[in-house]
Amino acid sequence: MSRIATPEYRRCPVTGRWVILAPERALRPIQLQHADPHPRRDAAGKGLCPFCPGNEVMVPSEVYAVRDPGTEADRPGWQLRVVPNKFPAVKELSDSSPMAITPDGFSEAMIGFGRHEVVVETERHDSDPVSLSDDEFTRLLVAYRERLKELAKNPRFTFASVFKNVGAEAGASLAHLHSQIIALPLVPDAIRTELEAGNDYYRRERRCAYCDMIRYETESALRVVDDGQQFLTVCPFAPRFAYETWVLPKTHDSRYETATDADLLVLARQMKRLLTAMDAVLSGPAYNWYLHCGPLRAANMPYYHWHIEIAPKTARPAGFEWGSGCFINAVPPELAAVKLRAALK
Amino acid sequence: MSRIATPEYRRCPVTGRWVILAPERALRPIQLQHADPHPRRDAAGKGLCPFCPGNEVMVPSEVYAVRDPGTEADRPGWQLRVVPNKFPAVKELSDSSPMAITPDGFSEAMIGFGRHEVVVETERHDSDPVSLSDDEFTRLLVAYRERLKELAKNPRFTFASVFKNVGAEAGASLAHLHSQIIALPLVPDAIRTELEAGNDYYRRERRCAYCDMIRYETESALRVVDDGQQFLTVCPFAPRFAYETWVLPKTHDSRYETATDADLLVLARQMKRLLTAMDAVLSGPAYNWYLHCGPLRAANMPYYHWHIEIAPKTARPAGFEWGSGCFINAVPPELAAVKLRAALK
Repeated sequence: MSRIATPEYRRCPVTGRWVILAPERALRPIQLQHADPHPRRDAAGKGLCPFCPGNEVMVPSEVYAVRDPGTEADRPGWQLRVVPNKFPAVKELSDSSPMAITPDGFSEAMIGFGRHEVVVETERHDSDPVSLSDDEFTRLLVAYRERLKELAKNPRFTFASVFKNVGAEAGASLAHLHSQIIALPLVPDAIRTELEAGNDYYRRERRCAYCDMIRYETESALRVVDDGQQFLTVCPFAPRFAYETWVLPKTHDSRYETATDADLLVLARQMKRLLTAMDAVLSGPAYNWYLHCGPLRAANMPYYHWHIEIAPKTARPAGFEWGSGCFINAVPPELAAVKLRAALK
Repeated sequence: MSRIATPEYRRCPVTGRWVILAPERALRPIQLQHADPHPRRDAAGKGLCPFCPGNEVMVPSEVYAVRDPGTEADRPGWQLRVVPNKFPAVKELSDSSPMAITPDGFSEAMIGFGRHEVVVETERHDSDPVSLSDDEFTRLLVAYRERLKELAKNPRFTFASVFKNVGAEAGASLAHLHSQIIALPLVPDAIRTELEAGNDYYRRERRCAYCDMIRYETESALRVVDDGQQFLTVCPFAPRFAYETWVLPKTHDSRYETATDADLLVLARQMKRLLTAMDAVLSGPAYNWYLHCGPLRAANMPYYHWHIEIAPKTARPAGFEWGSGCFINAVPPELAAVKLRAALK
């Protein structure tokens, strides 16, 4: 076992918290500068962008692509492609590799097994998600689904985290539109907490907490941003971040994988409306979004409900947040919802 | 109940997470710019600094001070003072105010009751903690203790979070050296998690997990930065942040309040050594520190152990961290410890 060179999962013996140590991440190129006045633009431009057509050689071979008929893999002619991350947080191992590391009796660690993929969302060197057409945005949401289905085939992957960073303040290091997927051999803390809380609620109420939330928020309308036929866009009651917004399907399912192409076109349009409103209200903020869904291969759980959380990064968490785990948010969700509603097209 | 104007604690009905909504925080002055090349300096300077001598009128009246004999409260002549935060995250209420808000059957909220104080650490308009002399640093650590003792007298405060933000990247908005204390009517999530995990460990092993950690880390020496007679400075086994470091007293106590002035002088010197090394290795990084100790008025708990966590902010958490709760750290603590040890004076 090398503690320096290969990624590891480690569990803090005193808090129980899992982290990933990923030394190779330190080597990745940072083309978005922290001090850049426009947080989404890069200084490098197309020529040096590893995600631009013609630069396919700069990243590992594609594992999924939408491309023109007759074009070759890892060559131009694509509209969306998924490639392994060149500087992965976790790594694939042969099936015979030992998973557990037990350096001693006190601490707990595992080899940093997993798969870290990048979804390059368009061939254009664009950085704004709303520059994607409805078809392109749908293609992206379909790619999420197809990768989840594919990753589910490996029985050693338990959960896949799908997420996107827009702007340096949100942790993005490259400008060219891309999402990321990290498949893990464990269910990470935030998802485990949601599963447990959802299960507790279900045992008590015999209903899904998220279905109740949709009903409750739709009735009160205080925090609703966009009430679609299939999806509800809403600022949650207790948001960690200013203008944090969730998009939830109105039909109960814990699995994103069951969404149809038609569902995802509706979702794409609704997300684009939200992001356009956010850009207008917050002047093109940095933000993250992340898909929360059930573990890979799980049946439809009655107590969990997939959704996408969109969280602008307008303020930095400080010592209080890091030390207490409790977030201070200066913008009540009722106010955020009023402003976002007003800015909706 | 006004949902917009006064602070509130809110509990997310689907995750169980508490947050603080604090609309007034949006009004506070930001004198440290995000894009500033040196993250600790401010553009405002002394003249406009609410923490400089002569500007006492810019902040509420002091509740604690170390000052020259014969000088008046809220006038120059002080070396350290504690004042209520002018833009507090939580607010004091008359004893008759109702604590719980029950807007409806689904959500849970409480009035944002608490006290938010600022510890102005020196009369000088300095921004680097290592510019504090040993005596000044000790005075600061003593002020933490005295405020914890004072806040404990209010039976409605359950826990007080003591923390410090250095540099804009760590969430600081003003340059002049200061710490903050937020007294709460609840034990926040991160502390509750540590208390529960500590209690589980104690039931299983009949020993304090932190005492075991000290023993184990001292023996292995892999992650030890500074092994003092009274305190151990160590990079924890599973750190969320690159170069995250903890300082723990070697004698078991869950209460910071029992530390003597002599203990705190030793701690001050050891913290200054660490911060000087961190400045050298990371070129003056932004960082947070936060005191983790037991709830107010609690006896010495056998399963909890006070300590200070120091966390540089060299990378921004991204969608994966926010969405999964699992942090990716590119610097193994063994490597961080080697570098910090080498830079120790």
